[in-house]
Amino acid sequence: MAFKTDIEIAREATKRPIQEIGGKLGIPSEDLLPYGHDKAKLSQSFIDGVQGRRNGKLILVTAINPTPAGEGKTTTTVGLGDGLNRIGKNAAICIREASLGPCFGMKGGAAGGGYAQVVPMEEMNLHFTGDFHAITSAHNLLSAMIDNHIYWGNALEIDQRRVVWRRVLDMNDRALRDMVTSLGGVANGFPRQTGFDITVASEVMAILCLATGLDDLQKRLGDIIVAYTRDRKPIYARDIKADGAMTVLLKDAMQPNLVQTLENNPAFVHGGPFANIAHGCNSVIATTTALKLADYVVTEAGFGADLGAEKFMNIKCRKAGIAPDAVVIVATVRAMKMNGGVAKADLGAENVAAVEAGCANLGRHIGNVKSFGVPVVVAINHFAGDTEAEVQAVQSYVATQGSEAVLCKHWAEGSAGTEALARKVVDIIDEGGADFAPIYPDDMPLFEKIETIATAIYHADGVVADARIRDQLTAWEEAGYGHLPVCMAKTQYSFTTDPGARGAPTGFTIPVREVRLSAGAGFIVAICGEIMTMPGLPRVPSAEAIMLNEAGDIEGLF
Amino acid sequence: MAFKTDIEIAREATKRPIQEIGGKLGIPSEDLLPYGHDKAKLSQSFIDGVQGRRNGKLILVTAINPTPAGEGKTTTTVGLGDGLNRIGKNAAICIREASLGPCFGMKGGAAGGGYAQVVPMEEMNLHFTGDFHAITSAHNLLSAMIDNHIYWGNALEIDQRRVVWRRVLDMNDRALRDMVTSLGGVANGFPRQTGFDITVASEVMAILCLATGLDDLQKRLGDIIVAYTRDRKPIYARDIKADGAMTVLLKDAMQPNLVQTLENNPAFVHGGPFANIAHGCNSVIATTTALKLADYVVTEAGFGADLGAEKFMNIKCRKAGIAPDAVVIVATVRAMKMNGGVAKADLGAENVAAVEAGCANLGRHIGNVKSFGVPVVVAINHFAGDTEAEVQAVQSYVATQGSEAVLCKHWAEGSAGTEALARKVVDIIDEGGADFAPIYPDDMPLFEKIETIATAIYHADGVVADARIRDQLTAWEEAGYGHLPVCMAKTQYSFTTDPGARGAPTGFTIPVREVRLSAGAGFIVAICGEIMTMPGLPRVPSAEAIMLNEAGDIEGLF
Repeated sequence: MAFKTDIEIAREATKRPIQEIGGKLGIPSEDLLPYGHDKAKLSQSFIDGVQGRRNGKLILVTAINPTPAGEGKTTTTVGLGDGLNRIGKNAAICIREASLGPCFGMKGGAAGGGYAQVVPMEEMNLHFTGDFHAITSAHNLLSAMIDNHIYWGNALEIDQRRVVWRRVLDMNDRALRDMVTSLGGVANGFPRQTGFDITVASEVMAILCLATGLDDLQKRLGDIIVAYTRDRKPIYARDIKADGAMTVLLKDAMQPNLVQTLENNPAFVHGGPFANIAHGCNSVIATTTALKLADYVVTEAGFGADLGAEKFMNIKCRKAGIAPDAVVIVATVRAMKMNGGVAKADLGAENVAAVEAGCANLGRHIGNVKSFGVPVVVAINHFAGDTEAEVQAVQSYVATQGSEAVLCKHWAEGSAGTEALARKVVDIIDEGGADFAPIYPDDMPLFEKIETIATAIYHADGVVADARIRDQLTAWEEAGYGHLPVCMAKTQYSFTTDPGARGAPTGFTIPVREVRLSAGAGFIVAICGEIMTMPGLPRVPSAEAIMLNEAGDIEGLF
Repeated sequence: MAFKTDIEIAREATKRPIQEIGGKLGIPSEDLLPYGHDKAKLSQSFIDGVQGRRNGKLILVTAINPTPAGEGKTTTTVGLGDGLNRIGKNAAICIREASLGPCFGMKGGAAGGGYAQVVPMEEMNLHFTGDFHAITSAHNLLSAMIDNHIYWGNALEIDQRRVVWRRVLDMNDRALRDMVTSLGGVANGFPRQTGFDITVASEVMAILCLATGLDDLQKRLGDIIVAYTRDRKPIYARDIKADGAMTVLLKDAMQPNLVQTLENNPAFVHGGPFANIAHGCNSVIATTTALKLADYVVTEAGFGADLGAEKFMNIKCRKAGIAPDAVVIVATVRAMKMNGGVAKADLGAENVAAVEAGCANLGRHIGNVKSFGVPVVVAINHFAGDTEAEVQAVQSYVATQGSEAVLCKHWAEGSAGTEALARKVVDIIDEGGADFAPIYPDDMPLFEKIETIATAIYHADGVVADARIRDQLTAWEEAGYGHLPVCMAKTQYSFTTDPGARGAPTGFTIPVREVRLSAGAGFIVAICGEIMTMPGLPRVPSAEAIMLNEAGDIEGLF
């Protein structure tokens, strides 16, 4: 049986004019700024005008710890949105934009897959509406202005060894991780060691995704700490006078993008911060605007529920004043098998015992999400090789956890495959059982916030950190940053800091290696183990196979 | 008397929907891919469909050597386009896109000025339709793939000391000119010295602006020489397998952008290569497409006529198979005075003698342009302080050169101020005197081509170059590159290589310091003196004053 590729399915889509998609949500044509015939940005005046409306219901799609088997979180988000529309609900989805860098490395598609995709997928995986380019420009303008300030006399007395603001490119380029710049003599400035991160790791990205409007955006940009003086006084972007021009560069990027699913339902695609050193959710402005326009809004968060859902709840919902009405945890039979100890090569064979063993990972996520006061449904994203007994094993296990697991076939069938999930989600929302609260209060000391996440969500025995790190946290508390939430940077593959420790491990501690203050975004990053802020390309980059075919269509994005 | 700023005038413009502007040129709505309500790209299928049509008349706007007094070449291009429409002609203009980098440094406006502007000027000076971002991405993808190739085993045996492909950003950032990358150990690759240029200096920019279509684009991208082996064998972008993905990244950027003048006349704004290490003209595809749609097409070339017009004729026209029907040389009374030895601070006082002395610069440009077989009109771009006697002095001088100088007041009056110029241009085109030919044939040896430009255009006594440079040129001839035109990289302020030598100097030679092969763009660059491929920011960057005002409008772009 020959499956169609995602790009082939996407190319066959019958797209409706974007004005018609906007019409489903009551957006007038003049408030849709078109980018081609199938993409548009919402005008700021329209966004301002709907703020008084009542909110729709918010559904978060999250997942078990990711495995190489693939879980299909975005695919399920798209499928559930289409499923809700299929059963007659007015629903929209909110997902993240794709990063160009990875697209030319290992993977394309951040637009769903199979018959649960957002289109135009090629453009979503390339320049889209230019938001990431705008973030790259704004970030690097600040970088240039810092070095320029030092060059022209350094009136702010920046310690050149303590410039913490790097540069960014939306590219996987390991050569740029670590460099010495300003070589070549007096005219080129003062040499110093620095480097580039990938654009999605920029604090500007996190800021854009948390800002509630252009005023808030400019304030947060001004709050960015770019360097320190010799006596460790922070220098802000505002001191460099970059915040105004950065806001101008980001003016259009702040407007949410509207596209459509293969089934012509509305999809907001906006922002895409890294889920490790940032919070990994689409923009607050897209989510809060969608909640004013649709009765049901389906959104997702990066990585597994231990990172993505935790940050969605403790950072995004807290800061935006929103609350999820239900959470869908995506699991697959294959991933359960891998969590149960099966190697990727052996996933083809039925193995009910391994599925049952791997369910412990799912179970812990279910409990964790419920601890935020939100009802949970499990979506089993069906793969062709899954056996009935394996599916049954997951469903039985989930029942023992007080939830229900619904089999979904949206990849192959579109919304027909998520009708049952959509009905179940509507039912539990109608039951009104949600009573959301973040799991730690604003006024808890920073180190205790880290401990709370580590013990309550990861189920670690505790947190290990040098005195240097505890002192830094105390210093930030004294400087007025103690109320900030904590953004954990940890491997997504495990509850622990060991990527190989699958399932539901116990008897471990979480070592905090470093803490960073993202004063503009408004969180403290706790780095636990290696994190990568500039990926490299693989031995054979997917870019080698990306090209235009004879018909002028793009090949090789998948 | 309080003048309005350019941005104030632009903001008051009554823009027509871009579909209506396209309609003036017979472009159907469905072939205009909108970017907001006031910008659009032409569909590739429409471009393909009009190729069989007859060409309109082509008018090049060029200038004397630029001075700090300002000449207003783009402003005059816009003004002439509007003037031609005013007298009932079907005319379009073709200009270059603006670079973001300079916009945050010294200047904004690359969209004309006063009442001769293209709108939306704010967006033209910011991200516009994302073309430059696409060029940045395509360029840097190739860079990343080169270092990645070396990292994974270097099967092509690239000599790491001979990687000639740098990286680019659309930013003025002197710190990035010269650097050592890949520090930090094995995982980050092999340290090597390299740097960033500004995006407009990328060979990808030159290629995009010379390519006749997507196939030609991919071929040229593949032809880029990125490095050499230890025994000096060239390694091409094609060898790195980057050409397909680069073409995909540039697919939309290849489509010309349509906007409008303040008077709602069509303006194509597409591409913007540096006028020193590249050829400094808008894209071939925009110009050739405009010629199929309008009876008169007004375009411009970077810097003064010695660089801009020479490259327009010898490179762009030669390669695109087009020919100008008339050339307008822009001069100002103030610039004539500066060429006549007056300092900028003293420009306010009437000084007819200085004007007359400075006219020698204008006279040489008139003769040069005529040597290409094209009739010349001089446009005197009027400034408020110019006296009648000064204007008369320029007009009398130009008459002695066998041309006519027309006073133009488009900055203050729009098309009313260029009606006389438009009529004069139409008259000389109707006379049919143009018999265009490049000033050197393809098969002339490369060094002789440099000598021809230096003696015939600059009026130098000769060219000085080391044996090393002559040997390099001979080697390229033997490698099959001898048929390429030469792209001169020289100061724009003088016919000589000394920026201070104004007027019409004689008794000098042109030293060629370095030659470079742009095999993808298809020219040899001859570098004569210092050229800057990555500008820096000034002591007080204009970015410090760029911001959104209370009404949400952009302030500080000018």
